[in-house]
Amino acid sequence: MQLVIGNKNYSSWSLRPWLLMSAFGLEFEEIQESLQQDGLKVRLGRYSPTCRVPVLIDGGLTVWDSLAICEYVSEAYLDGRGWPADLRARAHARAVCAEIHSGLSALRSEMPMNCRARRLIELTDAAKADVERVDRIWTDCTTRYGEHGPWLFGDFSIADCFYAPVAWRFLTYGTPLSDGAQQYAARLRHHESMERWLAGALMETEIVPEDEAGIDIPGARF
Amino acid sequence: MQLVIGNKNYSSWSLRPWLLMSAFGLEFEEIQESLQQDGLKVRLGRYSPTCRVPVLIDGGLTVWDSLAICEYVSEAYLDGRGWPADLRARAHARAVCAEIHSGLSALRSEMPMNCRARRLIELTDAAKADVERVDRIWTDCTTRYGEHGPWLFGDFSIADCFYAPVAWRFLTYGTPLSDGAQQYAARLRHHESMERWLAGALMETEIVPEDEAGIDIPGARF
Repeated sequence: MQLVIGNKNYSSWSLRPWLLMSAFGLEFEEIQESLQQDGLKVRLGRYSPTCRVPVLIDGGLTVWDSLAICEYVSEAYLDGRGWPADLRARAHARAVCAEIHSGLSALRSEMPMNCRARRLIELTDAAKADVERVDRIWTDCTTRYGEHGPWLFGDFSIADCFYAPVAWRFLTYGTPLSDGAQQYAARLRHHESMERWLAGALMETEIVPEDEAGIDIPGARF
Repeated sequence: MQLVIGNKNYSSWSLRPWLLMSAFGLEFEEIQESLQQDGLKVRLGRYSPTCRVPVLIDGGLTVWDSLAICEYVSEAYLDGRGWPADLRARAHARAVCAEIHSGLSALRSEMPMNCRARRLIELTDAAKADVERVDRIWTDCTTRYGEHGPWLFGDFSIADCFYAPVAWRFLTYGTPLSDGAQQYAARLRHHESMERWLAGALMETEIVPEDEAGIDIPGARF
């Protein structure tokens, strides 16, 4: 099984299935492609019809899109353990994943993932509202399912993977959060697989200009 | 079970789970809210934290987002029949649903769903590329799974529901398609539940200005 990903420093979509597969100890080969524009479409087009990362290749099967990959991995390799066991909690988990998959677009465009940077940024009201919404999701879920474990839905799940890039973003841009959300973000960043991802990002030297936002905080870069 | 939807003429997101639940003959109460901006956030905020439609209310459970609702309905009421039975076909179906859920954004923003209108429109290159991509998805899927039935993955599935609004868009804007894609679009528009949705849209008189795009073709309005 092979997972095609982009630059670890920048590729928030790649992080999601990578984290799921790493956190659950699945064996897979990592194929990395630079997100530099130069020849990008041709390079990524070798793997999937969307010319995007991530892509999962499993024998003759190609699955593109982070959510579809996570669903497949959960079904095919985790006996469904990628999601909460309870039907209703699972519906809730899929709803919050869908929010970051198709929405929260101001946050996603104004605060690109850039693991190794520490930046000052001015957010629009739309992005501020998105930050508040994420804070509320994290606070609500960790409170509601807290008796089952320390993650959004108790046990570690696809929902944590979907918000993992946001935890890096909030660190990069020094985003103020409520105490509960701050604790969850820190817990997520210290997950063993997240630390491995960060270590990979820190070894990368390439700068993808399209994904630069904000002003570097002097001396605060890794 | 209640499904909160927006104006049938305009709400592409609402159509998806509504079509799934209708096509599979599930009983549900339809709650309709106007998508007029006036008081919109407050009105929709009574149902879900995202202040958006669609929302499914099932006893004490609230599920928002079209994809999460379809996943829940398939699990809770259809014994999984919302998706193809084969694991690999299911992964493929989820990948193409994810594309329209989070991507194909030029198509979605430049060609808003407007069932009852017939319009002239000038598309950007990005939207033209999105149209080509949808054409390819429809052609590929109906060819590949054609022996199992006439829909994208043989039997009618969530994937057909996810592309149903696009079938209305292509009619509204007179979009040229390949023969295979054109046939599939027509088949989808003539699905009994789609005809019921259209009948509902035609009974609506409200105009939601934010969703108006293109120039009316004289005499071609329903």
